[in-house]
Amino acid sequence: MKMENLIRFGEKFFDELEIAIYKNRDASVNIELNEVSTSALRERVVTVVRGVKDKKLGVSIVDTADEEKIKESIERAYKMAKLNKPDEKWISLPEPGKYRKPRKVDKELKEVSPDYFVELARKGIELAREEGIVVAGGGGGAEWRESLIINSHGINVSQEGGGAFFYIELVGMKEGRVTPGIFDFDAKLSLNLNVEEVIRKALQKVKWAFNVEKSKTEEAKVILEPEPISSLLTYALFPAFSGEKLVKGTTPLASKVNESISNELLTIYDDPLHELSINPVIADDEGVPTRKNVLVEKGIFNGFIWDNYWAKLQGLESTGNAKRSLNTGGISIGFHNVIIEKGKKSLEDLVGEIDHGYLVDGFQGAHSSNPDNGNFAVVANPAFLIKDGEVTGSTVFMMSGNIYELLPTLYEVSKEQRVLPFGGSMVVPAMAFENVRIAGK
Amino acid sequence: MKMENLIRFGEKFFDELEIAIYKNRDASVNIELNEVSTSALRERVVTVVRGVKDKKLGVSIVDTADEEKIKESIERAYKMAKLNKPDEKWISLPEPGKYRKPRKVDKELKEVSPDYFVELARKGIELAREEGIVVAGGGGGAEWRESLIINSHGINVSQEGGGAFFYIELVGMKEGRVTPGIFDFDAKLSLNLNVEEVIRKALQKVKWAFNVEKSKTEEAKVILEPEPISSLLTYALFPAFSGEKLVKGTTPLASKVNESISNELLTIYDDPLHELSINPVIADDEGVPTRKNVLVEKGIFNGFIWDNYWAKLQGLESTGNAKRSLNTGGISIGFHNVIIEKGKKSLEDLVGEIDHGYLVDGFQGAHSSNPDNGNFAVVANPAFLIKDGEVTGSTVFMMSGNIYELLPTLYEVSKEQRVLPFGGSMVVPAMAFENVRIAGK
Repeated sequence: MKMENLIRFGEKFFDELEIAIYKNRDASVNIELNEVSTSALRERVVTVVRGVKDKKLGVSIVDTADEEKIKESIERAYKMAKLNKPDEKWISLPEPGKYRKPRKVDKELKEVSPDYFVELARKGIELAREEGIVVAGGGGGAEWRESLIINSHGINVSQEGGGAFFYIELVGMKEGRVTPGIFDFDAKLSLNLNVEEVIRKALQKVKWAFNVEKSKTEEAKVILEPEPISSLLTYALFPAFSGEKLVKGTTPLASKVNESISNELLTIYDDPLHELSINPVIADDEGVPTRKNVLVEKGIFNGFIWDNYWAKLQGLESTGNAKRSLNTGGISIGFHNVIIEKGKKSLEDLVGEIDHGYLVDGFQGAHSSNPDNGNFAVVANPAFLIKDGEVTGSTVFMMSGNIYELLPTLYEVSKEQRVLPFGGSMVVPAMAFENVRIAGK
Repeated sequence: MKMENLIRFGEKFFDELEIAIYKNRDASVNIELNEVSTSALRERVVTVVRGVKDKKLGVSIVDTADEEKIKESIERAYKMAKLNKPDEKWISLPEPGKYRKPRKVDKELKEVSPDYFVELARKGIELAREEGIVVAGGGGGAEWRESLIINSHGINVSQEGGGAFFYIELVGMKEGRVTPGIFDFDAKLSLNLNVEEVIRKALQKVKWAFNVEKSKTEEAKVILEPEPISSLLTYALFPAFSGEKLVKGTTPLASKVNESISNELLTIYDDPLHELSINPVIADDEGVPTRKNVLVEKGIFNGFIWDNYWAKLQGLESTGNAKRSLNTGGISIGFHNVIIEKGKKSLEDLVGEIDHGYLVDGFQGAHSSNPDNGNFAVVANPAFLIKDGEVTGSTVFMMSGNIYELLPTLYEVSKEQRVLPFGGSMVVPAMAFENVRIAGK
């Protein structure tokens, strides 16, 4: 198909327009109660048209890449734009930019059958089937994505790539004791998933979890594993980096540029082409080149991230952080691959140096955090008690506070980072905080 | 396509198998901040294969109705079944039954363009644009569904039909006061949506909401509008009607058959062919005929609902309540169209008879209810204060308790019922309870 023809067709209606086509293929399996419960091959094509006429916006979505159907979709977007009121703040769609060199992609991910993951899942289930262990849930699969973004200012960028994942949830049941669900996972840009390691780690945590100890209300050292720290930051801190929130006056970071929000142990940046990224996009969803955006450097807040609309409104340039919802077609500001810089000590050493403290493996309720002020209230579960440098059992406690009070108490970051397949991807170490107020449950 | 050929192909691998094909078409729009933000035409085809060989289950999903692709999907389901362990409790897939006469469908819903809803949405926005009113959100659209369920025991049933919906969220902003989001909606089996009435009702509620009054901690009469009562019952009560929970020992209704759980004002049944239903299916997702299942009659609990698997395990017959997830392909027990029997008085009269009490238009947090014991804790918002038979302002309060203690305090049911497009559909009146303990906020 000649995409340029579609742009030309659209220019009969619009002053400027953008066409974005996404093709996704997912080969995956689910695990439930020691069995593989589904083998799925999902395919999806979505085209989003965004056009502007006299500053009036029209957005239409259609589940196809068929040329005639896209033309109809352009006409629908135009009918909608005509009826809308002008957005006087509208400036323009993005202009072309220079892209970085894309990463090499593993074509195996494009063709793999769900059968591959059926066997992988069976292997995981067999490895986990020790006495007193139930494989409560899990899954695995490969996603392959192709996208094309083109606009009437000359942007024309296509990308393809994929990744694979495997995760497991174990529950221990022994002598009347039932552990909470214990998760572990792996995610890679290839099929080279380490199922043995996932199961080994999960089994270790279940064994810890059998020995339940009460937590008390106190101030203590708390190590947050990559998954809980990333979920807490995702909801309590990261939205505050959005330029839209700066414009709207809803970020507590508005007056904090070049000020410390933590200490020199904390460095955070967004870079889809980081070597560990599993979301290596060279362009964002408006076709703007992605780049490395430093958010926090040695504790100092460096500035905000932007999409095209909010950046231009402020007289700035997009930082390449536009993300499109394939449900609504709408663009919002988001991350591609957040990296939290690693430290020097191993997680084992961090645990080993604690006389009395906690190692947290999961947070419940992080999504209810308030990024407009940084307040959070989460339940640490599963959490593990550390005594004299060793994990001695599992526990549950409440942790409520404010992310801007927690971050300065960071006293160590682990040298191991994990790749998390959430919100694009994240590369995150374990992070240790001191004097954390916890409430026993 | 000859579906029977696919069954014959599958019988080379399986002892018994089922193929279910779903085609959905959605034409819809979104509303954001006084504008139409998206016009969407979504189409989706999903085929789910379920096969059993030597009591080993295989389930595969593929996003197509293409015959060759379905054959591949059957082979994948077989590979998965081979690797799974037998489910010794498995008996068999359903046998054919007699279906009721399907309702006439409105073919307009199959062809309608999203453009139709762009105009409807603009009309709604214009009607709502009074001073101090913002149309914060909303949407409208038509869904058309076609399905075919066929199995190796001779079940072969196809269905088609659709419905349309429109909803709006208004926020009042006047003299520094901001109301909570106020919702109203309409849902029908035709395009004949009453936008004027939706806007009229929502505007009335915004006007009430401008005058905020403190609520106190007390026992009072509380009228729950259809939307909040349906969300509370959906999470706190209805799951307890599931036969699976009876088998697993997790329903508090296990020993309550033929006992009262409320009083003679409460009658609840599930019937997709009820005259007001917007989900008029003649077969469930296993091809079993649907029927009218009385759950509660004049307060007396009548018994449980079943799908094929759990019913046969108990030596019973499916009540036609199997619902399939198009994400996992899995079958669970659910409702098609729950009807709560109407009463004799108008909602206006119910309000008029209250000297001091509350009218609740929305609950937050109903999804955290525990159906295994009936406990709930919800925030009533928006809620309206009633004084001397009239609504005098809006308020917010907490309501926590147990559904089995709340239901016997029912003292009146409105004669008006609303059709709610949730979980299939629901037909629900307003329900008035006395001596309800509320906690001011």
